[in-house]
Amino acid sequence: MKELQVALNNDRSYPIYIGSGLLAQADLLTRHIRSKQVLVVTNETIAPLYLAKLQTALGDYQVETVILPDGEQYKTLQYLEKVFDQLLAKKFSRNATLIALGGGVIGDMGGFAAACYQRGIAFIQIPTTLLAQVDSSVGGKTGVNHPLGKNMIGAFYQPQCVIADADVLDTLDDRQLSAGLAEVIKYGLIRDPGFLEWLETNMPKLLARDKDALAYAIERSCVNKAEVVGEDEFESGVRATLNLGHTFGHAIETGSGYGHYLHGEAVAIGTCFAADLSRRLGWLNDADVNRIIAVFKAANLPVTPPKEMTTEHYVDLMAVDKKNIDGKIRVILLEAVGKASLPVNVDLAQLQATLNGYAG
Amino acid sequence: MKELQVALNNDRSYPIYIGSGLLAQADLLTRHIRSKQVLVVTNETIAPLYLAKLQTALGDYQVETVILPDGEQYKTLQYLEKVFDQLLAKKFSRNATLIALGGGVIGDMGGFAAACYQRGIAFIQIPTTLLAQVDSSVGGKTGVNHPLGKNMIGAFYQPQCVIADADVLDTLDDRQLSAGLAEVIKYGLIRDPGFLEWLETNMPKLLARDKDALAYAIERSCVNKAEVVGEDEFESGVRATLNLGHTFGHAIETGSGYGHYLHGEAVAIGTCFAADLSRRLGWLNDADVNRIIAVFKAANLPVTPPKEMTTEHYVDLMAVDKKNIDGKIRVILLEAVGKASLPVNVDLAQLQATLNGYAG
Repeated sequence: MKELQVALNNDRSYPIYIGSGLLAQADLLTRHIRSKQVLVVTNETIAPLYLAKLQTALGDYQVETVILPDGEQYKTLQYLEKVFDQLLAKKFSRNATLIALGGGVIGDMGGFAAACYQRGIAFIQIPTTLLAQVDSSVGGKTGVNHPLGKNMIGAFYQPQCVIADADVLDTLDDRQLSAGLAEVIKYGLIRDPGFLEWLETNMPKLLARDKDALAYAIERSCVNKAEVVGEDEFESGVRATLNLGHTFGHAIETGSGYGHYLHGEAVAIGTCFAADLSRRLGWLNDADVNRIIAVFKAANLPVTPPKEMTTEHYVDLMAVDKKNIDGKIRVILLEAVGKASLPVNVDLAQLQATLNGYAG
Repeated sequence: MKELQVALNNDRSYPIYIGSGLLAQADLLTRHIRSKQVLVVTNETIAPLYLAKLQTALGDYQVETVILPDGEQYKTLQYLEKVFDQLLAKKFSRNATLIALGGGVIGDMGGFAAACYQRGIAFIQIPTTLLAQVDSSVGGKTGVNHPLGKNMIGAFYQPQCVIADADVLDTLDDRQLSAGLAEVIKYGLIRDPGFLEWLETNMPKLLARDKDALAYAIERSCVNKAEVVGEDEFESGVRATLNLGHTFGHAIETGSGYGHYLHGEAVAIGTCFAADLSRRLGWLNDADVNRIIAVFKAANLPVTPPKEMTTEHYVDLMAVDKKNIDGKIRVILLEAVGKASLPVNVDLAQLQATLNGYAG
């Protein structure tokens, strides 16, 4: 087992445990649990696979559960309320612990519920998708979607620990695996060109679920994520670079209806947008853009957007992105392959040209 | 105008402005507003009285509004969502500012919406009830109610400033004025015996809305609140003493249906419970308890509970209080008149005796 540290101020630092068979190691959990009251938030897909294992590991505790439907379309205030209902029905105290057992949706909702219940209880992330293990479970971004914008309602709220058990990827379907690789590739593109080269070489192994290759990809992704978050917990600067492709991606997710595209799929398409826009600014050349498209394709990810979305649709949806200031649309681009820009105000004509190019 | 400071760590300190005619002083507001986007959250009672004045003061800004129905029964996630709907419909950025113009309900909801929207935007408290001016607008507790428990969903989130304009109390009805006095009396009981004596002498002036007396009561209350919050922002210790009477009070509010009792009324009754329980522990004598009941009566506040609530009902409702640990009911009591206890585990037999005494 590897242990990485997310180094934050004010006692908010926490470990990420990465390895095999971690779900059965009760002490990894129990050292971070404050009282006997534990609520596991999970979903209908994950519960039959891993909930019993977790309950066995926590045999001495009062373990209650909330099982949500599976999918981004359920990441809403309405479904969040089901978590509060259960916490209150079971009379859970402020020293209770919430465990989020699932992918990014469960982690975001569980974390946000923990942030809000009695103004904050402890929580533990047990990510069960590659995407959640390499990205969303680390760094304390929690929240739910609004019909008009993704992740628009939420909190920065750090977990007590993250337990990334590579064994759970065995049950992940191929589409979900590829979606996770989109965020893995992102780290290579924004700040780790050596990792990008490794990914270009080892993509077949990753898709074949080679254990060592996956473990390495998870660890190196988490190291990158932890460094960025440790430097800028509340996204006043460099943390925004983790949003490469996300402004476009969120617009695609919102515009096509939550749950239609997986988050990682939308991010892959969005990153190809960003690469094209970077080329229009003279930061990337044609070979760079083609290389970026190729690595996403190698991961079996989509690189072209939904045909039904118009340019106006994108501009409208991107106008509520969290990076925007005073209504100006701001995106992360690439100054080079392996080097993200800080948020840049988008020239609308160039944005339209990019979107037209893709929509065309 | 007086300016008090709430002294907190990590740049979260902020001023409380107390005085007359403050709503018309645009610069008090504008120095705390980050961009042109301003959302005013208020209610149907307050909007006709003060919204236009605020809009005039903010003539140069894009001022949008959300007008909620008036009452504790609307302090829910469902009504909170109306604030998010408007923020997103108007495409407000993360540097937008939310102004909560109203009593405790509006302040709690506005603050919580600001805490969650895009994981946190700036907000300003303009309390329009005595209760909000002396208590709920100061200290950063925000949130909404759940059918099973009051203030169970929320965040610690500090405003940029609090503007307590004593003029707005002119339009406050007598019942609301008295409800505010319950929290004023609380400061005397928990930590400021000299203030309690002043209140015993000056209660008729306060009820007659003597401007100087009200201004003094607001200021001294805010000084007390700011000191306690500055010492213990996140309620790991002394801040819990501000909850004197609130554990019982919340049970009364929840049990009798939100909106039936005003918060201050329920706190007055709950504080009389707490006094009785303190007597049973030998901390207060009969004269102390009678003195406490007398000061609430002098403020035209209720001191006996709703007849329809049973002892079992109280115990059940108090079992979800935020001060509880591992299911044990904990309350703030009085070690003396003018000196609160820290949370104490309640002896159920004594609690039953107190409740039976009141219910009988």
